[in-house]
Amino acid sequence: MMHTDSTIQTKVEELLSQMTLAEKIGQMYQTDPGTVLRSYNSKIEVSTPVTGPVSERTLSKDLISNLGSILSATDAETAYEVQKVFLEHNRLKIPLLFMFDIIHGFRTVFPVPLGLASSWEPKLAEDTSRVAAAEGAASGINVTFAPMADLVRDPRWGRVMESPGEDPYLNGLMAAAMVRGFQGDDLKALDTVAACVKHFAAYGAAEGGRDYNTVDMSEAALRNYYLPAYKAGIDAGAELIMTSFNVYDGVPATTNSFLLRKVLREEWGFEGVVISDYTSLWETIFHMSSKDGEDAAKQGLEAGLDIEMISTEYISHLEQLVERGEVDVALIDEAVRRILTLKFKLGLFDDPYRYINIEREKKGHLKPEYRQLAREAAQKSMVLLKNDGVLPLKKDIKSVAVIGPFADNGRILGGWSGLGKPEEAVTVKQGLINKLGNDVKVTAAAGCDYSSNDVSGFQAALEAAASSEVVILAMGEEDHMSGEAGSRAYLTLPGVQPKLVEEVLKLGKPTVLVLFNGRPLELKWYHEHVPAILEAWFPGTEGGNAVADLLFGDANPSAKLTMSFPYTVGQVPVYYNCLNTGRPKGHEDNDFRFLSKYLDIPNAPFYPFGYGLSYTEYTYSDAALIGDTLTPGGSVKAMVTVQNTGDYAGEEIVQMYVRDLWGSTSRPLLELKGFHKIHLAPGEKATVEFVIEPEMLSYFTAKKQYEVEEGDFKVFVGKNARDLIECGTFTYTL
Amino acid sequence: MMHTDSTIQTKVEELLSQMTLAEKIGQMYQTDPGTVLRSYNSKIEVSTPVTGPVSERTLSKDLISNLGSILSATDAETAYEVQKVFLEHNRLKIPLLFMFDIIHGFRTVFPVPLGLASSWEPKLAEDTSRVAAAEGAASGINVTFAPMADLVRDPRWGRVMESPGEDPYLNGLMAAAMVRGFQGDDLKALDTVAACVKHFAAYGAAEGGRDYNTVDMSEAALRNYYLPAYKAGIDAGAELIMTSFNVYDGVPATTNSFLLRKVLREEWGFEGVVISDYTSLWETIFHMSSKDGEDAAKQGLEAGLDIEMISTEYISHLEQLVERGEVDVALIDEAVRRILTLKFKLGLFDDPYRYINIEREKKGHLKPEYRQLAREAAQKSMVLLKNDGVLPLKKDIKSVAVIGPFADNGRILGGWSGLGKPEEAVTVKQGLINKLGNDVKVTAAAGCDYSSNDVSGFQAALEAAASSEVVILAMGEEDHMSGEAGSRAYLTLPGVQPKLVEEVLKLGKPTVLVLFNGRPLELKWYHEHVPAILEAWFPGTEGGNAVADLLFGDANPSAKLTMSFPYTVGQVPVYYNCLNTGRPKGHEDNDFRFLSKYLDIPNAPFYPFGYGLSYTEYTYSDAALIGDTLTPGGSVKAMVTVQNTGDYAGEEIVQMYVRDLWGSTSRPLLELKGFHKIHLAPGEKATVEFVIEPEMLSYFTAKKQYEVEEGDFKVFVGKNARDLIECGTFTYTL
Repeated sequence: MMHTDSTIQTKVEELLSQMTLAEKIGQMYQTDPGTVLRSYNSKIEVSTPVTGPVSERTLSKDLISNLGSILSATDAETAYEVQKVFLEHNRLKIPLLFMFDIIHGFRTVFPVPLGLASSWEPKLAEDTSRVAAAEGAASGINVTFAPMADLVRDPRWGRVMESPGEDPYLNGLMAAAMVRGFQGDDLKALDTVAACVKHFAAYGAAEGGRDYNTVDMSEAALRNYYLPAYKAGIDAGAELIMTSFNVYDGVPATTNSFLLRKVLREEWGFEGVVISDYTSLWETIFHMSSKDGEDAAKQGLEAGLDIEMISTEYISHLEQLVERGEVDVALIDEAVRRILTLKFKLGLFDDPYRYINIEREKKGHLKPEYRQLAREAAQKSMVLLKNDGVLPLKKDIKSVAVIGPFADNGRILGGWSGLGKPEEAVTVKQGLINKLGNDVKVTAAAGCDYSSNDVSGFQAALEAAASSEVVILAMGEEDHMSGEAGSRAYLTLPGVQPKLVEEVLKLGKPTVLVLFNGRPLELKWYHEHVPAILEAWFPGTEGGNAVADLLFGDANPSAKLTMSFPYTVGQVPVYYNCLNTGRPKGHEDNDFRFLSKYLDIPNAPFYPFGYGLSYTEYTYSDAALIGDTLTPGGSVKAMVTVQNTGDYAGEEIVQMYVRDLWGSTSRPLLELKGFHKIHLAPGEKATVEFVIEPEMLSYFTAKKQYEVEEGDFKVFVGKNARDLIECGTFTYTL
Repeated sequence: MMHTDSTIQTKVEELLSQMTLAEKIGQMYQTDPGTVLRSYNSKIEVSTPVTGPVSERTLSKDLISNLGSILSATDAETAYEVQKVFLEHNRLKIPLLFMFDIIHGFRTVFPVPLGLASSWEPKLAEDTSRVAAAEGAASGINVTFAPMADLVRDPRWGRVMESPGEDPYLNGLMAAAMVRGFQGDDLKALDTVAACVKHFAAYGAAEGGRDYNTVDMSEAALRNYYLPAYKAGIDAGAELIMTSFNVYDGVPATTNSFLLRKVLREEWGFEGVVISDYTSLWETIFHMSSKDGEDAAKQGLEAGLDIEMISTEYISHLEQLVERGEVDVALIDEAVRRILTLKFKLGLFDDPYRYINIEREKKGHLKPEYRQLAREAAQKSMVLLKNDGVLPLKKDIKSVAVIGPFADNGRILGGWSGLGKPEEAVTVKQGLINKLGNDVKVTAAAGCDYSSNDVSGFQAALEAAASSEVVILAMGEEDHMSGEAGSRAYLTLPGVQPKLVEEVLKLGKPTVLVLFNGRPLELKWYHEHVPAILEAWFPGTEGGNAVADLLFGDANPSAKLTMSFPYTVGQVPVYYNCLNTGRPKGHEDNDFRFLSKYLDIPNAPFYPFGYGLSYTEYTYSDAALIGDTLTPGGSVKAMVTVQNTGDYAGEEIVQMYVRDLWGSTSRPLLELKGFHKIHLAPGEKATVEFVIEPEMLSYFTAKKQYEVEEGDFKVFVGKNARDLIECGTFTYTL
């Protein structure tokens, strides 16, 4: 959280002292704009997304007049009207806060976070978040519900597309970068919004990959894997944090004192605002850990929840609970103090309309430089999974067919794409036309839809393919098949798309599969049969241009996966930073029975963490460790030389992993501890250096505390978590 | 553990006082018979199964002469020779203990535990364990590594076949029954063996269903789900417990003080012997939680491990550790005291050969009454999954074809089947001939093997089917596809068996699928296409007769699943006693998006826990709760009337579940708290009564202690965990 100056503190206390209990509790409630507008008979009508099972509740005008914040007013006109009618009725003229999910762009849409993370470029996440903040702030938004820092290991879960992936360290870098991007260094600036880290905690570990499902894990797993990225976001200054839907240790996160008081407030010193997820306080009743709404309100307050989103347990019950002496009003003051502080920091008391300006909004969206950044981000997010040499394509072709549901389709923005409009997105076909001009014939044919059994379009598609020099298959998952509540039990390319691929391949044309999807899929068959595969994720507004840039070699793929792609769904969870077990299989061809393995598939994922190809080749050599002893305050260095031994200039993501050879608890086989993204011209060579310091080796040990334990550590460098070279071993000693 | 009288204690102390440190440490080591025989140049050669990645180690004769116990000497002749040559060299003439995995029969093989548990008849498990003990003891075995009490939720794990299933309560009843069966009430009796509960703890939760893989869970999950069945086995008097291969809370179970000292010794008061699993102490090095063998030995001793199996860290390092003052010799004395106590209790000091008698061994195996029990157990274990009316088959047919790899195959014993011999097993074909006599033509044709792509046998099989009145498909998994290290990522019927089913069904004959397998499989397609399905598991020696009994109506299926069968592998884990979540889907047809569900499959398993059909119908009515308030020391009663409304006599397993409507932590939707297996003649009616007492409602609460919390509880009765009738709600109050 950013520094709070003493002037603000004085103002907050002054205001707080004037507030009635009802007014205080009102600050702790967040609802949708429609509720306010309808209450005061405004002529403006809005509809906002309903993402929870709550039924509409009629609230008295009195309650509404004390409201603290608004969810999902997404344009300046609505925000203005809501703020205006509200302030006309609010006794102390405390402005509303406007919050919204700006996840990967607001109007200009960038790649989904799992794609953006594949760039391994926190600065890019910072830049795209800055643009998203600028566009959002120009529409009156003060707070975004991002970054999502949930560590993910289960591709069945639809929200993996919103996460940076399976690594605590990389996730933390991306979360921190996004916080910096959203908040800038001045919360009062007209192009920044406050960031809200989510979903605290361990939401990504939903059992069976089923959204909102039970989470169960040890405290050590929580602390070693799941917490670091949230903490990185908080340490970067995020003003808010959102509780998750799941239970931790049997208690819903929204009423979980261990998470919200002990970890977040006591250990991390977080002084910002804690907000529930959509109706998650009410949902503690369904979790069967709150007896009723009143109990939920009491538990939420005591656990340290400041704002309840959408559901109404706080405003319905807190006043009576205080009156009956069942909760301490000091806890309410504490919460309200935090909320008011945020409003002061954002400058809303200076001018409740400072962010709401219809003229600025008009000029502030989809600027050419924003589109340019979106194009660059998309280029850097797309992962080349396979290339037998067909790529890059030559531009001097006469014709190209683009086949599949994404052939000429703007729905490449992905879930939670704000105000992004498919019709403003560059489709693959349009990207190809933009790239190739009018002399090349570009034919697009969907061939089929995303997931039905309808093959009636096959013939037209196959004719288009047959009459073209090159075929691009633009296929994948429909956007709503990932994202919130987008859980799938099958990780296959849906519908008849696989059949269409088979049919197209029979034509024997140079064929590239470009995938649009929000999660790791089962790609073994495609890898074995299609000449080249580009994982495009949901690339955002400039997706089609970026695809064309990469396919035709105007950009060289450099992205690498941040989440393992499983061999098949029956292998899930599969992730690189796993434990060794007592009976490691070691080499995949070890066929002794009594080892930790499957009878029918390998242990390794199909594509490992960190994997991604380029049009050029990078050769690693001279891996070394400078220093074999590490002491407190000291460091050792890992070095490796990387040479571009291919024909294209490119960027390589050089990764450094550490293996703690012995701990008081079992330790992961590998932990990513550093990486560098370097640019190399053909033939160029660079020495890459990683500094290893003791704090990087700290973990939550058998003593139930964070420590760096003495012992030996092996260091590896390489292109991905599978293809590694050993640098050497050092000893940490006190 | 059975009571230890003071005479034994005195003898133990006397003996202990005479022992050198090396002799003491020797007691803590267990190896295979070959090591002993080769050391002393015996003429007898034996080979024993190697189930771990250990390489052979040459031990000095000195070390061998101090040995404590033997793994897998499985016949009286070997045992006699080993005991003899050993005692010739052992200074204090301390007899060896002989231990072996008698899991579901020794020579007469009973159904695999997952099948036997489907009988819901602890007495049957007790009876079969008694027979197994008698056969094993007749071959010189003193200790069996059973019961396995691991709770299981992941059918990918091969050892689900050794487990009673997914319910803590039922697993506990089965574990306790098996302990009683093995141990009887006299450990010195010649037909009993000491029982060893395994694998402590939570081995069944191996990640991804991959054997030996990482286990991670909260302490609450451990205590509420996983521990109860081990404890039930211990409370029933088991003399030993075996540590598991996995980590718990990051520390391998074999060196885990929390499990072995705090839970097992302090909380449960266990005074028996703790033994490692096969090389599991050595494997802590691979877990990267032991620095080396010496560290492993130290950690094992301090954690409370008494016997190390196969690997040699104790005998290689403990003496030096004591000499250097790094471990307390009192810990060694403690361990040896327990081991010697067990030897005294078994009467081995009276006569080291008391269980070793070749004549008794010859007469003691495969008695007709044992075979009869095996047949009954198999009948009661096979679950009728589907029947559109084709079953029971009529005996007045002219011909029957039995098709599939199990058509005339004795490999129906399953993993860990002791000395069971496939050639002594009754095949399906033989069972049919036994049942139908010579007037009915029984044709068997494999058609294919278990898992290859070879379809060359299809034609013969299809001809046999085409020329028969009725077709029985005898298919499934090869025996080694489940059991230890038998993990599968795909839960399908393997190889070309599915194709053969399709081809046979095209003939339009009355067709029954009889499945031989060790785990829940994906059966949706078969359920939709095959007229009847009987889940036979691996049924043991009398499998073929039991299949014939059930198919032709001489026995009426009564078994019910104790593990949910998933819709598809992408749904795993799926189990009935799950939490509700904050966004329960409720009815399967609820299509509101933002609920905890998959987009592509239902939430419910394909066959639920407790599911199984009969040839008759049972109608439930008049469900009621007698009493609406429960207080300490009191009880309430749930009642239901069950009527046999069909045409066959049969046995119904009436199940009672409780839902704790509110707890300090989230509580399972349902918990099995009682069941009755009742026999009903056609038309007969019975009132079934369940007594609910406060202790049944206890769980490990948010306070981190076992408590019965005040609140409301809903009671259900029914045929399975899906088809339930509500009895009512009661309140527990202090």
